[in-house]
Amino acid sequence: MMAPWDLYVIITTNLGGGRPTLELVRQALAGGATAIQLREKDLPARELVELGREIRQLTRAAGATFIVNDRLDVALAVEADGVHIGQEDLPARVARELLGPGKILGVSTGTVLEARQAVADGADYLGVGSIYATRSKEDAGEPIGLAGLKAIRAAVTVPLVAIGGINSNNAAEVIAAGADGVAVVSAVIGAPDVAAAARELLAAVRRARH
Amino acid sequence: MMAPWDLYVIITTNLGGGRPTLELVRQALAGGATAIQLREKDLPARELVELGREIRQLTRAAGATFIVNDRLDVALAVEADGVHIGQEDLPARVARELLGPGKILGVSTGTVLEARQAVADGADYLGVGSIYATRSKEDAGEPIGLAGLKAIRAAVTVPLVAIGGINSNNAAEVIAAGADGVAVVSAVIGAPDVAAAARELLAAVRRARH
Repeated sequence: MMAPWDLYVIITTNLGGGRPTLELVRQALAGGATAIQLREKDLPARELVELGREIRQLTRAAGATFIVNDRLDVALAVEADGVHIGQEDLPARVARELLGPGKILGVSTGTVLEARQAVADGADYLGVGSIYATRSKEDAGEPIGLAGLKAIRAAVTVPLVAIGGINSNNAAEVIAAGADGVAVVSAVIGAPDVAAAARELLAAVRRARH
Repeated sequence: MMAPWDLYVIITTNLGGGRPTLELVRQALAGGATAIQLREKDLPARELVELGREIRQLTRAAGATFIVNDRLDVALAVEADGVHIGQEDLPARVARELLGPGKILGVSTGTVLEARQAVADGADYLGVGSIYATRSKEDAGEPIGLAGLKAIRAAVTVPLVAIGGINSNNAAEVIAAGADGVAVVSAVIGAPDVAAAARELLAAVRRARH
């Protein structure tokens, strides 16, 4: 299954300036987000399922990919397109087996070793970062920079979604370094105008590619 | 799939007096626990999988049932016998569908209405409580007492595992009120001698039944 990773917007409601989850999703989609990830570490599964069902409808209507972070069971329950796992979540190989072949598996990686392992375990795409310093994710570790991204690009062939401190000013160099798309949290959902921020970032990604 | 619910020990490591998870499990099984539930709300999925795999081996060797709380994906990943969900976890009907027919689905209930709904949604057994006041679960709500348990017993035919403030002094009246077994946290894993506490409680349950 292929997906366009140009602009991958991660929704974590408490980074959205007090706006409701579904409003953030609607605005991100209105601005052209090609993928939405629901990443809520502190919500009970029942709430995740309720939100996930709504986001499934919104993303389907917009032609966008919908990915659930960590909770593979919730991803299946809401018929998301796939699940994204970090290095502390389910082991990738286990996730691949539970998901079956028809769903997308994304894995967060920061090194060539992790990237190779994730692909061997069945990842369909990789989250790669942090590229730059970021405050959206406390446990993001030291930035790997464009050099780190290039090294992973040289090592694997699956799509790479770069993450960490990316905005419309630096998106071009990230794409030039080999990313297939950019993932953002605050740069879009923390912006005063979410749709406008998404639109600007998507334009920067597409300009960089052509 | 049937399981003996006589003594259902819930493992939440931080209620275990500083002892390691697997030591608590080993001691509970040594004392005769017939079912073990892993309930860790704050551990990453990767750690749950690692613990779950070990508990799967220990419970299999002891002939005990192994249930994972909330994380259906983890339950499947470690080949647990089933999953237990509360009213804030995955909806029971969704859990039933994702689990398939070969796994056990348990649902926490406190009223006849919830109990009937859970059975209609596919629950194989019900957790019923809190019977008495308890400090192990902050969100347990007002105790339903033996009267609440009897009402649920009269309403459904699936096995009932009573929970909440149960110990070897009151276990007999809980069984007499219609419970098929008792679930405990602190009464076993908080005891100075976990195996002895399990043994004493199991004996009380079995005496009450015969």
